[in-house]
Amino acid sequence: MSASTRVHNFCAGPCTLPVSVLEEVRDELLDFDGTGMSIIEASHRAAAYDAVHMQALADFRSLAAVPDDFAVLFLQGGASLQFAQVPMNLLADGETAGYVNTGTWAKKALGDAKKVAPVYEAWSGADGSFSRMPSTDEIEVRDGSRYLHVTSNETIGGIRFPALPTVDVPLVTDMSSDFLSRPIDWDAHDLVYGGAQKNLGPAGLAVVVVRKDRLSTHGRDLTSYLDYATHESNDSMANTPPMFAIYVMGKVLSWMQAEGGLAAFEQRAAERASLLYGAIDGSDGWYTCPVDEASRSHMNIVFRLPDEDLEKRFVAEAAEAGMVNLKGHRSVGGIRASVYNALPVASVEALVDFMAGFRSSNS
Amino acid sequence: MSASTRVHNFCAGPCTLPVSVLEEVRDELLDFDGTGMSIIEASHRAAAYDAVHMQALADFRSLAAVPDDFAVLFLQGGASLQFAQVPMNLLADGETAGYVNTGTWAKKALGDAKKVAPVYEAWSGADGSFSRMPSTDEIEVRDGSRYLHVTSNETIGGIRFPALPTVDVPLVTDMSSDFLSRPIDWDAHDLVYGGAQKNLGPAGLAVVVVRKDRLSTHGRDLTSYLDYATHESNDSMANTPPMFAIYVMGKVLSWMQAEGGLAAFEQRAAERASLLYGAIDGSDGWYTCPVDEASRSHMNIVFRLPDEDLEKRFVAEAAEAGMVNLKGHRSVGGIRASVYNALPVASVEALVDFMAGFRSSNS
Repeated sequence: MSASTRVHNFCAGPCTLPVSVLEEVRDELLDFDGTGMSIIEASHRAAAYDAVHMQALADFRSLAAVPDDFAVLFLQGGASLQFAQVPMNLLADGETAGYVNTGTWAKKALGDAKKVAPVYEAWSGADGSFSRMPSTDEIEVRDGSRYLHVTSNETIGGIRFPALPTVDVPLVTDMSSDFLSRPIDWDAHDLVYGGAQKNLGPAGLAVVVVRKDRLSTHGRDLTSYLDYATHESNDSMANTPPMFAIYVMGKVLSWMQAEGGLAAFEQRAAERASLLYGAIDGSDGWYTCPVDEASRSHMNIVFRLPDEDLEKRFVAEAAEAGMVNLKGHRSVGGIRASVYNALPVASVEALVDFMAGFRSSNS
Repeated sequence: MSASTRVHNFCAGPCTLPVSVLEEVRDELLDFDGTGMSIIEASHRAAAYDAVHMQALADFRSLAAVPDDFAVLFLQGGASLQFAQVPMNLLADGETAGYVNTGTWAKKALGDAKKVAPVYEAWSGADGSFSRMPSTDEIEVRDGSRYLHVTSNETIGGIRFPALPTVDVPLVTDMSSDFLSRPIDWDAHDLVYGGAQKNLGPAGLAVVVVRKDRLSTHGRDLTSYLDYATHESNDSMANTPPMFAIYVMGKVLSWMQAEGGLAAFEQRAAERASLLYGAIDGSDGWYTCPVDEASRSHMNIVFRLPDEDLEKRFVAEAAEAGMVNLKGHRSVGGIRASVYNALPVASVEALVDFMAGFRSSNS
């Protein structure tokens, strides 16, 4: 299939990747870099893979401007395993932390952390159907909290923190769904984590960036894989890493650097979001966005149509027109257009055109 | 590169895969099954991936003849995370299990399990430099043991159990390095696990097969990802699975079925091993195998040359002749030829020829 016949993929994750990256992966699939074998057949201890791995670590550090006193770890198990691994590694016995409950993902993080340590809910958006992020002064940070956990963007609710809370304790932020779509304030953080499968690459890889002096301070008898220190001291090769996902993410990181780095991607995200929210807001209330305006996500744009039948037809007709994965999450319904780093603005323009046409045919 | 110019890859893992599988992956890389996107861009909730995932689960079950009362789980974190997850899930508070220490991998499993539960070493091969597997009557199984953990094949030492021990408690077997290279006695097992990256596919995927009535019996407050029940009740899609690795493994499983199933692969493994051990044993002691004859691995054939300088030259000259990754593990030295399921017999024949030539040029 030629690049021009590919669909517009609005999937919430995994998500669309740059065509140039996919073409490179395809062309190298039977012989990576003259080794006479595929990258998925290579030893993780061999020079060819080692170069890919170390370059991906370095490129992540450079692209995200990660300071030297933070470690970059490539792990498995997704953000889901981090919901447990973060408190296991950052909280010593009896220590506590606050969790800001902004929706599905924050709730999962809190649920797992409660099994590890006496953490608490520092704010809940349940009353408002998780349609907005809190301001800093709404968040309760209890004395002695080791960190405050936040979710920078909620994929299902379609909300994001325009700026993260400013609190007196370090932040720990799940950035799975807007990872490397805007600069990160490292001074405010002890740890940042996220699955790679939205903005950065294929599923099967989580990236954790953790302040080095927080490693090995937990005092717990952690098993090897669950201890961040195991991975830090082995450049994330203590065991066989998820090599293919790291290799593809490395190519995406190179592409992002060539395209102008985080500043460029923050600007593109704003442009994509502005086009879509503009189409919603300019529809005289035919399309509606259930999200508080200040909390509107730049990655997952959710909206409703006048009724559910129209929503079903919208999704079906959009798919016929080559715009796929627009159905909202089963838990909230409606429409969701996920517009991650690699989604071309042209895909968003196509959707905006389709929205106008669908409205005029159905109103 | 054409298939015919590929190297002979004797890597201990990850390892060589069937060329036909790699070609399919390459050809589908930009458009999987007419979806207009790559499999690595697809939603794990979409029909196209769902079919791949469920077929891989079914094919694993069918190929390994897994009975209905066992669950097949696709997890992340490799066998390394299983070293912790197995005792967390199979041992309630205070329960114990025996671990047979047959080398590097068994020792890691034991080390992690000790952090979870009061387990014990049921046999150790340390005295004999881990050059053989124990017989059943050498293994101490203490009263009240919930299971006996064994490693069916030790990649580094180059030893395997020709038949697993026959004991009065269920076996838990790490099959990472000979997974699906011979039939599995399910009656004897509560659980079998292994990383996929040797016989079955790319790195980043572990397969766990566990007796269903052992799920949720641990009484522990396990976090979501670490509890097998989470994955069992969601067909291993509780969170985003390692989709690419599952997709490739699915193709390898189909290929294995078409090639005759486990019986055929057991026979091929015996043939490959016999060629190599024959070359060693027929060299008048120039090549030597440090492993007890009854415990010789059919997957990782280790041998020594008269001195280390010759070993270095052997590895270098073999690589020049297109036979790569023959260096023994850094902890034991020597030569190691790993001959997994997808390695053609022709690769072994090439190595046997090379061994004869190298010996006659250097003795």
